[in-house]
Amino acid sequence: MWNVLYQSALGRLKLTTLNNQKQTTQGWTTMQWLRTLRHLVRAVCAATAEILFLRGVGVGALLLSAMLLQPSVMVMGLVGVLAAVAFARVTQVDVMYLERGPLLFNPLLAGLSVGYLFQPSVASLFLAATAGILAFVLTWTLSHVLYTFFLLPVLSLPFVVVSWSVHLAAFRFAGLQHAVVPAYAYSIGLPVPLEGFLRTLGLIFFLPNVWVGMVVALLLLLNSRIQFLLAVFSYAFGSFIQGILTGTFAYVYYDPAALNFILVALALGGYYLLPSPQSYMLAALGVALAALLGQAVSVFWAAVALPVHALPYNLVTLLLLYLLGLVGHQLLARYPQSSP
Amino acid sequence: MWNVLYQSALGRLKLTTLNNQKQTTQGWTTMQWLRTLRHLVRAVCAATAEILFLRGVGVGALLLSAMLLQPSVMVMGLVGVLAAVAFARVTQVDVMYLERGPLLFNPLLAGLSVGYLFQPSVASLFLAATAGILAFVLTWTLSHVLYTFFLLPVLSLPFVVVSWSVHLAAFRFAGLQHAVVPAYAYSIGLPVPLEGFLRTLGLIFFLPNVWVGMVVALLLLLNSRIQFLLAVFSYAFGSFIQGILTGTFAYVYYDPAALNFILVALALGGYYLLPSPQSYMLAALGVALAALLGQAVSVFWAAVALPVHALPYNLVTLLLLYLLGLVGHQLLARYPQSSP
Amino acid sequence: MWNVLYQSALGRLKLTTLNNQKQTTQGWTTMQWLRTLRHLVRAVCAATAEILFLRGVGVGALLLSAMLLQPSVMVMGLVGVLAAVAFARVTQVDVMYLERGPLLFNPLLAGLSVGYLFQPSVASLFLAATAGILAFVLTWTLSHVLYTFFLLPVLSLPFVVVSWSVHLAAFRFAGLQHAVVPAYAYSIGLPVPLEGFLRTLGLIFFLPNVWVGMVVALLLLLNSRIQFLLAVFSYAFGSFIQGILTGTFAYVYYDPAALNFILVALALGGYYLLPSPQSYMLAALGVALAALLGQAVSVFWAAVALPVHALPYNLVTLLLLYLLGLVGHQLLARYPQSSP
Repeated sequence: MWNVLYQSALGRLKLTTLNNQKQTTQGWTTMQWLRTLRHLVRAVCAATAEILFLRGVGVGALLLSAMLLQPSVMVMGLVGVLAAVAFARVTQVDVMYLERGPLLFNPLLAGLSVGYLFQPSVASLFLAATAGILAFVLTWTLSHVLYTFFLLPVLSLPFVVVSWSVHLAAFRFAGLQHAVVPAYAYSIGLPVPLEGFLRTLGLIFFLPNVWVGMVVALLLLLNSRIQFLLAVFSYAFGSFIQGILTGTFAYVYYDPAALNFILVALALGGYYLLPSPQSYMLAALGVALAALLGQAVSVFWAAVALPVHALPYNLVTLLLLYLLGLVGHQLLARYPQSSP
Repeated sequence: MWNVLYQSALGRLKLTTLNNQKQTTQGWTTMQWLRTLRHLVRAVCAATAEILFLRGVGVGALLLSAMLLQPSVMVMGLVGVLAAVAFARVTQVDVMYLERGPLLFNPLLAGLSVGYLFQPSVASLFLAATAGILAFVLTWTLSHVLYTFFLLPVLSLPFVVVSWSVHLAAFRFAGLQHAVVPAYAYSIGLPVPLEGFLRTLGLIFFLPNVWVGMVVALLLLLNSRIQFLLAVFSYAFGSFIQGILTGTFAYVYYDPAALNFILVALALGGYYLLPSPQSYMLAALGVALAALLGQAVSVFWAAVALPVHALPYNLVTLLLLYLLGLVGHQLLARYPQSSP
Repeated sequence: MWNVLYQSALGRLKLTTLNNQKQTTQGWTTMQWLRTLRHLVRAVCAATAEILFLRGVGVGALLLSAMLLQPSVMVMGLVGVLAAVAFARVTQVDVMYLERGPLLFNPLLAGLSVGYLFQPSVASLFLAATAGILAFVLTWTLSHVLYTFFLLPVLSLPFVVVSWSVHLAAFRFAGLQHAVVPAYAYSIGLPVPLEGFLRTLGLIFFLPNVWVGMVVALLLLLNSRIQFLLAVFSYAFGSFIQGILTGTFAYVYYDPAALNFILVALALGGYYLLPSPQSYMLAALGVALAALLGQAVSVFWAAVALPVHALPYNLVTLLLLYLLGLVGHQLLARYPQSSP
């Protein structure tokens, strides 16, 4: 498409004199680039908001700003997105991808996960860029498969797969320093369960930071009280199940897999299903299943200590959506293609 | 549907006087519930028989009765089924599921596998119920995928996946006591290979019990001599291959994965293919492949000591059925949708 | 089909006298068998050439002859193919399979991988034969799925899966002796990177032998200079990335996973895509992704030390081909069905 624009720009300029042709073209091109950049920034912001089932460029911009609290993580996330955008441009796959959130937020999350694990270096920058491109390719192909054959959204499944691959490969890579999160990000003296809730909200964006969590919680509350309550109750319910089954509440509020509870509840309780008691029951069941699968995944990766990431949320949500879609359930709210 | 019935019941009763209305409705509802319960019990019995490619409510009832020899296992199996039925009722997914064996026997097997591994407790009851629901959801979705795209039956694949997930998660759960099988269930002084055969037959229902095995063997013999001989010869052939390749016959007759030999032979030798020498050759090949894959799966899970379950049987049967279906083989006996 | 030929042969002979009937039929059958054998040998040769994106019976015959340098490996490969052919004959699945390279080279590679790992013995012969049959079944089914739903070729994916299964199972099998490669096959005193390149070329056929590598390099050069240069540059680029990321070049030239660099580049740079600068950039990106995924797979299997095989090549090529196919990219050169 950019070639076309460039050609048409050249076409118009053929009428002007040769003297100022080059200069004008440059001005035109610069304007085009600025417009593209603005378009890209807006698209990334909107995609960031979609991760949490929110909408709006402003919301996403606020979330991205909150990431400035841990700038190295944010930089790696942006490297992932930019690598994916550059790949799309070079291979001319399409420009419509800017409209599709998952094609941007999966590379973003893949990059963020590299920044979450490793300090910036040549090796980690390479990892973030490669992860971004791989996440882009996988999102495009997987979302096509899931939508064509099952009418399902892709969610963040590509990011989970890519993140694990990168993490596994990183065991062999020299020059990677593990990232250290400042202690103050973890605790500011609030009650442990509350801090656990806030950290988990931040961790959805790979920032297990109480302050980031507060921003996220506020955004949820401002957007809809139902979403906020779903997040609170699902975290409480999931942690309760986890504590009872594992026999101790000592680790429950520090478990990164708890973000699956919140995401499952937001997806089923208020996004893909119409809000209703039955939807909330399904969301509660989804939280229970996510607790079980989260432990299973964590044991599966025990030898290499890989994080669970959002796999339980993805599996549970896709399975239940597919089942409800098959039986033509009256609670299904929206067509998956219009959603993260 | 139950709402509809209830509404129509109410509709009829509007004509009666207000005095006896409540009483009559209650009687009607109780009758409905009893009818539902009988229908459910019959469906579960039929589904139980289907696990072993048998037919009939009576056969299934006999198999379920045999489970009374280890009541705690049986209870967990029923918890799995009841959780699945409750889930189907609450989410109103359908009532037709009672006609489809896999939707009942996969939750049953998932529950039985929990009872096979753990003693009854709050945690294990939660596991059995969650496993039942997960198996139900997975059976529904996976059977739809396999049938729509590949014209294949779902067999017990969902149970295998769910059972592994539950078993993995159980490593983290406190309050689970490993089940202890009484010694007399394992040996009654018969020759080792014969006892191995009988235990393996029982193990198909998670009851590695010589007496249960005798009941199963008798049922097979009464149903068809071919099925009985297929079970005997496939067990002998599979154990022979295993013994030769592993270099010792010391463990062969205690290997739980041997149930795959019997199930593959029953599926290929007499159920999905027409009985013929060529089918028996395919069944023998299937047994050899199942022996290989069984060892592979067992090594894959070596670190966490997960059981092989019925994965080799599922993989080999589905692969060969798909291949024969693709070439339009004349031996293919029946449409997969009418089978377990 | 053979039955038909046999019947028609019998039909013709009914006219001759009874005395010489048996004799003549035998002569006829022998001729048929010789013709079949020649047809089979030619098909296997052509399939062998296809592994490296070459064409021609002569090229394949030369490659198979080069395997005589390590005859035990070659024998196991042929056992794999013959078992697959025998299986196809007995189950009468089709005779058209001789025209389809992947149906022959996947069993060949599966057999070769057994010969590469283990010395000839009863157990290893059983493994090679079973692996060949399993690879045949898996190639048939998987190629149908990939082509029907995604218009993708099957490449050597079945071989990878089968080889891992066999290797896992082999941990439990007695009587397997690990194969020892003679030292002279590994080094003849050339510079280390050059020897690494040649060994890697040989390793594509499970013969990490400098001399075999020279034959392969010559065949590539004779076939097309572009292919030869793609092989050289992709090996150099992939090894460079690997060396930089792992922090040392000490092991890079001994890494068996390096064959993925060459195969990805040959597939994307000159076979499935039209030769062009953009294709070469995509090939370079594919090499980088293969380097990352190769390390990931190798860590995944670290506990059991399974080789990476050609999985990264298969994954990267299929993903990128699917993406380019979805967007209808102008670089896509050929229909996948006509290719390995």
